[in-house]
Parts: sequence; C-alpha cells; structure tokens
Amino acid sequence: MMRYNPPMRTYYDCYPCLIRQSLEASRMAGAQDDQVKTILNQAMSILQEMPDGATPPEIGTQIHSLVRRVTGVEDPYQRVKQLATDQALDMVPKLKNLIVTSDDPLDTALRLSIAGNIIDFGPNPSYDLWVVVKRLLNEDFAIDDTLSLWAELSKAETILFLGDNAGETVFDRLLIEALNKPITFVVRGGPTLNDATKEDAIAAGINQVAEIIDNGTRIPGTVLSECSKAFLERFWSADMILAKGMGNYETLSEVKAPIYFLMQVKCPIIGKDVDAPAGSAVVMQGLAAKKK
Amino acid sequence: MMRYNPPMRTYYDCYPCLIRQSLEASRMAGAQDDQVKTILNQAMSILQEMPDGATPPEIGTQIHSLVRRVTGVEDPYQRVKQLATDQALDMVPKLKNLIVTSDDPLDTALRLSIAGNIIDFGPNPSYDLWVVVKRLLNEDFAIDDTLSLWAELSKAETILFLGDNAGETVFDRLLIEALNKPITFVVRGGPTLNDATKEDAIAAGINQVAEIIDNGTRIPGTVLSECSKAFLERFWSADMILAKGMGNYETLSEVKAPIYFLMQVKCPIIGKDVDAPAGSAVVMQGLAAKKK
Repeated sequence: MMRYNPPMRTYYDCYPCLIRQSLEASRMAGAQDDQVKTILNQAMSILQEMPDGATPPEIGTQIHSLVRRVTGVEDPYQRVKQLATDQALDMVPKLKNLIVTSDDPLDTALRLSIAGNIIDFGPNPSYDLWVVVKRLLNEDFAIDDTLSLWAELSKAETILFLGDNAGETVFDRLLIEALNKPITFVVRGGPTLNDATKEDAIAAGINQVAEIIDNGTRIPGTVLSECSKAFLERFWSADMILAKGMGNYETLSEVKAPIYFLMQVKCPIIGKDVDAPAGSAVVMQGLAAKKK
Repeated sequence: MMRYNPPMRTYYDCYPCLIRQSLEASRMAGAQDDQVKTILNQAMSILQEMPDGATPPEIGTQIHSLVRRVTGVEDPYQRVKQLATDQALDMVPKLKNLIVTSDDPLDTALRLSIAGNIIDFGPNPSYDLWVVVKRLLNEDFAIDDTLSLWAELSKAETILFLGDNAGETVFDRLLIEALNKPITFVVRGGPTLNDATKEDAIAAGINQVAEIIDNGTRIPGTVLSECSKAFLERFWSADMILAKGMGNYETLSEVKAPIYFLMQVKCPIIGKDVDAPAGSAVVMQGLAAKKK
C-alpha cells in the first residue's frame, strides 16, 4: 500500500535555495548572529549528509526543525502566515465577485486557487497578489489537464484537497465552495515553513466548507512513508486528490494515485521536471488518474 | 606599510550566493555529477571553516581553486571571458562614437567603463550590455565623487587602474584612452572567476594604451596581504588608484590610499555597505583621497 517510485529528488541547483531558506527562516525566528551562524553551518552539514533521492521538502523539514531547535521558536512564520491570511481575507469580496460574474465560475475558482499558490516563503518570497490574480484569470495553463480534471471531479465522491500555504487557503476555500462537494482538506501536522496548519486553515474559514485533517508530519509536502496511518487510509481510498503547490508535487510526482497537481511553477528546477517554464501555472494529472 | 583596517566581511547573505557560484563554476568547468557533488560539499566545508572577517573574494578564491583542483580545468571561465571580450570589441566603434560626439567625452568614457562592469559571472550573470550602456549614459551616480575624481586625476602623475572582469577591460581601454595619461593596468595573477588576466587584458587591447602588471594573486579582488611585493610598491607609491568592481571594493574598502571605486552595485549586501541601492552605479572616493 505504501510502495511508490522515487519522487523528484533534490538537485544541486536546490542547494543555494535551501541555504537561502535557512537564512530567511533564521531571521523570521529572530535569530541572533551566533544562532544564524550555527543554523547555516548545520544546514550545510544536512546538505553534505543528504541521502541520495531525498526531496527538497524533506531537506526543508530538517532545516526548519533545526531553526526551531536553535532559536526555540516553534513557528517562525506565524506572523507572516497571519498577514498572508488577513491579506487574502480582505480580498474575498472582490474574489467572490469575480467568480459569480464569471461565464465559467468553476474555471475562475480553479484559477484563483492556483493564483493563491504564489503565496510562498520558500522559493520566491516577493509577489503582488492582485497582479498574479489578474494574470492567472487570463493566462493559458502551461500544462492543462482541466478537461479530465472536471470529468473526474463530476464522478468523484471522496475528494482529498492537499493544502499548501497559509493565505493560499483562503483562495482554496473559494474553490471548495464552488465545487460544492464533500471535501476533506489536508494540512501539515505542525508548523513548517509558511505551510498551513489546522489553525491557519480555520483562520481562512476552511472549516466552514470542508472537513480538516492533518497528514501527521511536519514536512512541507506529502511524504507518504512519513504520514500517519489515518491520513494514508484516506489517501489511498480517495476517488480524487487535488494537490496544491510544489512541495506536494515534489513528494508525490511519482505516486500512482488519482492526483491532480494545481500549482505555479516557481523555480526553474521544477519547471525542468514538469516541462513547463518557470513563472507558468499548471493543472497536471498525476501518474494515475484512476486509483489502482 | 601593509597595515590596514578589516575590509568588508562576508555576510551570511553571501552564503547562498557563494554556493551558487560554486555550482556555476563547476558547470563552467564541465564537471561531472560526482565532481559537482564533491565541489558543493567541499565549498560548504570552506564556508563552515571560514575565519571571521574573511571577505567574499577570499572565499571565492578558495572555491575557484577547489573547482580547478577537482575538475583539472585551469580556467573554467575561459570561453565566457573570450565571448565577453569579443562582444565588447564588436561594440567599440559605437562606443567610440558615443565618446567623440559627447559634450563631455571624459564623463562619457567614465560612464562606459562603469557600464562595462555589468559583465560579471559572480553575483548576477544575466544582463543586456547595450541596455546597460544606454542606462548608464543618463543615470545619476548613486554616490558621485566625480568632481574630486577629476580634480585629483588632473594632478596625478602615477595612476594605477585595478581591472576587474574580462570584457569589461574593453570599456576600460576606452576610458584609459580618453584620460590620455600614463596608466598602469593591474590584472589578477591567474585565472579566477571571470576576472581579467594578462591575456584577457591584451585581448581587449589594453597593452596598446597602458602598461599591464599583475597583483601576484588569484583572488578576485585585491587583498594586499597576499599581493606581490612588486605590486605593493606600485600600489603604495601611486598618486591615484582607480579600482573597478565589487571585488576590489570588498577587499580595499577600508584601506587608506587614494582610491576611487568605480562600480555597479550588483548585490544588496554591497548596496547596504556603501549605502546605495542595488542596481545603481557609484563613483566613490576611498578612505583617503590623498595618500598618507
């Protein structure tokens, strides 16, 4: 049941990015200079000792755990997660208006959910949310499996929605509302990077439109071998899985399950892996649209 | 004679950039995957063991020496240096025309020399040379000590010109021609990053307008404690020193000598240090306009 092919591994190009993330997480945690130095040195040791085939989210987990251990700060991104959620909540009336006035409300809601994926303190922390929303409303997806997505969705009875970042959750809530089906929203098992926890999902109002469960890990992705039994039972019995963001892609890309990846391609390495340019948005069927 | 204050140290923000440079240098050298891994791991060890107060060019030296040692390639940047020089040589007729038709040929030649400083495979390898030239012709310098620069230059008899990158040397040649004074052009003691060596300076035609000497080190900057005695004698006896680029700034910023730094601010760390925005250009008097 838990057997799966090796997922997208960490490339050498990820090294500078992971070191940058270590530095940013240190500063988010308010680390002193000597703590920053300790974190950077130990983060480099983590990379030096990285086993072959490890994914960026697995390395990221170790790095964010290191930052928590050295600084004693349990959730360094708490403030920026709250800000991202508040900013997105402020946009809800305008976003809802975009959906209800659309010729194709479902398509618009899907596009908004993917627009929300720009909220990310991992690969590229700088963005203008409205500019991204407007771009996504009109842009072709670089990989577009929406036809089969909608066909599968219409038949699916048990749907898992694997969330990604806090704030993005507000956009996801609008898509879940538009889908108007029973959906289970999955969050990480605890704070890691700016990924949504149960608290962050509730702050976005997800509890009003879906059941919320966590996957039992603090990995900023979904590494099945590390997830809780309760989550895995839901995962393998789902008719359909909507997986948001690069972290879920990096850890599930080779898993044979009825997954659709909804994400923005925020770095050239992922772009090379999915064969879509950096900066583009994709709706991409996973290795098996039907569960085995 | 060789006593000087500590220069700009390596900041934590430089770590991801130095790791990225290690990766790029590995690829420039055509390193195989296992060699890339060795280089990255050893580069991280260099950073972990870095003494306090080391400058980015000193770390860079160790990294580029590591790349040479692991790959056996003596000058990984040889091809891109040649391309940069050829590209700049192709522009010479248009650049010369800009100078001769200018209301202030010296100012234009100075601006072109600083425009050429964009050629750099360290901090930011992507640029459009003509766009930069046109921008620099009209843009105010973020730090502008040109008035005293010209005043000092008119009196100076012995002038050292500390070069930076290959290709940039072509632009420097035009400034040296415009200055029309006896000038000694200083290159690095051997290939390091894309910095100009004696061969690169000759390829740019510097030998037609100046004497060329090297500083006796392969550091992409000017670390006086490592330079040759012959160079130091010239350095300390010069009436005036024109120092191109960030590497020379990082290693000479606290040296009390009649230095003028001519550079583009290509990273936010240097920007913070000089108090000028990233992306700006500066003509900045060093700690002592008059030699002590």
